[in-house]
Amino acid sequence: MKKIILLIHCRDRSGIIASVTNFIADKKGNIVYIDQHVDREQDIFFMRLESEFSNSTFSIELLKEEFNASLAKRFEMKWRIYSSEEKINMAVFVSKYDHCLYDILGRYKSGELKVNIPFIISNHNHLKPIADSFNIPFYHIPVSKETKTSAEDQQLKLLEEHNIDFVVLARYMQIVSGKLISKYPNKIINIHHSFLPAFVGAKPYHSAYKRGVKIIGATSHYITEELDAGPIIDQDVAHVSHAYSIEGLIAKGRDLEKIVLSNAIKLHIHRKVMVYNNKTVIFS
Amino acid sequence: MKKIILLIHCRDRSGIIASVTNFIADKKGNIVYIDQHVDREQDIFFMRLESEFSNSTFSIELLKEEFNASLAKRFEMKWRIYSSEEKINMAVFVSKYDHCLYDILGRYKSGELKVNIPFIISNHNHLKPIADSFNIPFYHIPVSKETKTSAEDQQLKLLEEHNIDFVVLARYMQIVSGKLISKYPNKIINIHHSFLPAFVGAKPYHSAYKRGVKIIGATSHYITEELDAGPIIDQDVAHVSHAYSIEGLIAKGRDLEKIVLSNAIKLHIHRKVMVYNNKTVIFS
Amino acid sequence: MKKIILLIHCRDRSGIIASVTNFIADKKGNIVYIDQHVDREQDIFFMRLESEFSNSTFSIELLKEEFNASLAKRFEMKWRIYSSEEKINMAVFVSKYDHCLYDILGRYKSGELKVNIPFIISNHNHLKPIADSFNIPFYHIPVSKETKTSAEDQQLKLLEEHNIDFVVLARYMQIVSGKLISKYPNKIINIHHSFLPAFVGAKPYHSAYKRGVKIIGATSHYITEELDAGPIIDQDVAHVSHAYSIEGLIAKGRDLEKIVLSNAIKLHIHRKVMVYNNKTVIFS
Amino acid sequence: MKKIILLIHCRDRSGIIASVTNFIADKKGNIVYIDQHVDREQDIFFMRLESEFSNSTFSIELLKEEFNASLAKRFEMKWRIYSSEEKINMAVFVSKYDHCLYDILGRYKSGELKVNIPFIISNHNHLKPIADSFNIPFYHIPVSKETKTSAEDQQLKLLEEHNIDFVVLARYMQIVSGKLISKYPNKIINIHHSFLPAFVGAKPYHSAYKRGVKIIGATSHYITEELDAGPIIDQDVAHVSHAYSIEGLIAKGRDLEKIVLSNAIKLHIHRKVMVYNNKTVIFS
Repeated sequence: MKKIILLIHCRDRSGIIASVTNFIADKKGNIVYIDQHVDREQDIFFMRLESEFSNSTFSIELLKEEFNASLAKRFEMKWRIYSSEEKINMAVFVSKYDHCLYDILGRYKSGELKVNIPFIISNHNHLKPIADSFNIPFYHIPVSKETKTSAEDQQLKLLEEHNIDFVVLARYMQIVSGKLISKYPNKIINIHHSFLPAFVGAKPYHSAYKRGVKIIGATSHYITEELDAGPIIDQDVAHVSHAYSIEGLIAKGRDLEKIVLSNAIKLHIHRKVMVYNNKTVIFS
Repeated sequence: MKKIILLIHCRDRSGIIASVTNFIADKKGNIVYIDQHVDREQDIFFMRLESEFSNSTFSIELLKEEFNASLAKRFEMKWRIYSSEEKINMAVFVSKYDHCLYDILGRYKSGELKVNIPFIISNHNHLKPIADSFNIPFYHIPVSKETKTSAEDQQLKLLEEHNIDFVVLARYMQIVSGKLISKYPNKIINIHHSFLPAFVGAKPYHSAYKRGVKIIGATSHYITEELDAGPIIDQDVAHVSHAYSIEGLIAKGRDLEKIVLSNAIKLHIHRKVMVYNNKTVIFS
Repeated sequence: MKKIILLIHCRDRSGIIASVTNFIADKKGNIVYIDQHVDREQDIFFMRLESEFSNSTFSIELLKEEFNASLAKRFEMKWRIYSSEEKINMAVFVSKYDHCLYDILGRYKSGELKVNIPFIISNHNHLKPIADSFNIPFYHIPVSKETKTSAEDQQLKLLEEHNIDFVVLARYMQIVSGKLISKYPNKIINIHHSFLPAFVGAKPYHSAYKRGVKIIGATSHYITEELDAGPIIDQDVAHVSHAYSIEGLIAKGRDLEKIVLSNAIKLHIHRKVMVYNNKTVIFS
Repeated sequence: MKKIILLIHCRDRSGIIASVTNFIADKKGNIVYIDQHVDREQDIFFMRLESEFSNSTFSIELLKEEFNASLAKRFEMKWRIYSSEEKINMAVFVSKYDHCLYDILGRYKSGELKVNIPFIISNHNHLKPIADSFNIPFYHIPVSKETKTSAEDQQLKLLEEHNIDFVVLARYMQIVSGKLISKYPNKIINIHHSFLPAFVGAKPYHSAYKRGVKIIGATSHYITEELDAGPIIDQDVAHVSHAYSIEGLIAKGRDLEKIVLSNAIKLHIHRKVMVYNNKTVIFS
């Protein structure tokens, strides 16, 4: 039995749902999940559908071709069909902070993250022992103003050689260039340590302390060229008080960061995120 | 244009989604919302679907007949089709606490609750002035051990005379009898002042204080014959500390109770709740 | 028995706590609550203390004099001593939204808010019936560009005539002028419908929708001349999804607004808020 | 400079706070933190105080003696004085689940948990590689019905040899005997995977699934002889829906468990927990 995931978005029109479910039924698929959303402001239709095919002759390539030639054309859809069996390749970029890395690798090891992690890249050497203890190759690629371009070329080469599907910036403290972003559009997940759009930029906990907020947060998002302004995937917050020092805020925030980043990774892996208009639709 | 809501549950089988969407397409309906759930432990399929019909000859009665004769029979479905235009009738039962009543009536007046409230019933006279100020008929039906049966007969008579669709117990401090429950199965919503199943029964805040919990909660649920054991619709919680007296817990809890009860009312009105196996499926 | 609340802030120094507790013991007071905070960045000490005095000759005026002449001078303190018995006078300003007003008046009537509400002021007439049903005088003072100054003079006159201690802007949709703010510094509480500092200004729910946040919030704060930038008293948030329309965000937000505003009012009434450096210390 | 933490509880009486602050001032201590709580139901007074002593002749032993002879006697106090410099020894017990262990060791390594971990004990061998990668001795002490007593003797011997101050059961799936509990009263912290007192006992996620709750939780508590009934230190919860399978609840719950357990460990280390009457007072 093969299982596929279909993602669609297009202008909203009458009859889309019935047409799609018919198409799947025609191909002898059994729909096991369907969810849809309509953005009524923009008049855009979104759908996520999972289907099982038990006929021995089933071919995902053929399905894609036929879908493209029929419905995709008719409704002018943007669409993707994924096999839900294949494990995808995820690269992790880190700097010196270890809490998100420990969290990701712990979940990876226990099988919670169904993904391959071919390597970890860092601009520092500090976290190599963690990579070693989890038996994951670690590439130290230092970044300075002068070496930024060549460093990025090395990163890109590694990403391409290992067929990386998406990248996780697990508190990677360097700004990623437009070149890399354009090669991995909506495929580079960052964790920002505030409830965006509050406290964009560096040192959000210092800003939060100064402003005297009673809540701090963390935001996972796809990066875009505009800093901290990409589509938000997940957010969470925690209550704090005047009694928290900046260090206290940072410690509390670490727990948010790791949970919110891991949530985003899981949503991405399960193809539950659709991006449009710099926002996300998150299917359940 | 007519808009309907279709709710289905039945044993899970291959082809249900396609069959239902086909049926709607055949009747010239445009599906504007579809969501489904499968309970994999019990192998039960659930669906909620909204559809618009713009043909002038559309009849909801005919649709029901045809659905019943075809799909409902074939898949052995339990199903409901509602017109989403019609306002339904909601009765409110109260005793002496006013916070849930104020909250409900405030939302009612502002149009947030799309419902009719033909009357309020209470076993006390205390809240009559509130009913008066909102111009809602108020029936004082005292309840004692001796009068319990006749009181209930009066309640039932009022419910029937006003074609009440569902009942809200807004901190009504009397146990409702099996007779009333059996006439309104999964149609009587109660608010319990704890995060059930913790602290079943009377005085949950006192029990919470005694146990020294760091979180209190509230639970809205349909009542069943077993006390505080009916299907849960919504729950919410708040953090508390040792510094809270019992009165402090009660005050904090009031805010939870009113929000959680109003959420349940809205979910019920919009036909987003399905009950099976003493649990609920809550559609988004 | 008399009960007082003492609030202090001053530069942090060795010996303050012992000196203050000694002072109270000397005056035959029994300390029933003490809490303190030190801002280690700014080196500022804060204290809140409650004490009971059962001697028949106790005079709060005398206590203030002696405190001022001794400790206040020695440690260069800013301080306040309040009688915790006296009910303080709170004015409410509204426009057209009723949810915060209902919430405040419901709590007021039930005795949860230990305060007097001599009147409600509004720039519209819409909410007069609510004021009437709670038997609270309602002053309709329209505000336009031309009448803004004279309107404010009327407001000030009412505030002064009724010895108003603090003002609550319960979704009052006008900008309050510097003149009024300077007469009631840290005594005008506003509710802003976002988790500040995100979405400052008008229409925060529209901005939240556009940015695609997964969390919305509300913030109660003292107003200052800079819009939405005053000291934050309380904040709360709720999770939302792409499925929320702007109207859905607004409806969900109303529940946050009313709870967060009422929390701020209660903290203010119980003298649990200290302001410095455009931030608050909130005692438990 | 020496820093101490003083914890007190006794029957509430007039004059305690002033007496204690006087005592500290007499000894040339500078109070840097003071907080207190009175349980008005039981009439019990609690205090936590931190003080710095810069005189070169300061002796914590002398301070204890003098405190005991004076105030402790006069007010019949139960009290503790701790040096806040000394690192305390924490033992970790695990079985097969690794998420809490990873979380604890990650925080330990990064310096967030200011504690020594002389060893890890487990009734299984599964998690030895994790202990190895963090360079912490790992003792495999299998437990069966027959070996339970001798296993416990081995555990006790290790605890005593290493001067263990407190024990953390990081998802240790064995019931700890009364003998061990009585040697470490209010010093063995367990994490239970539900919001106690709901779902006491084994398999709480299965029970939560069956009951159809909309919220799951985790509870850290000191163990007592009665199963899952000891004093609660910290609790947290997360919203779930009908769409969660049991496995989904378990995965979501893991995030709660690790955060709630680590919070309890930090509170215990910093001497912020006082136990009485099977409840806790948690100082900020």
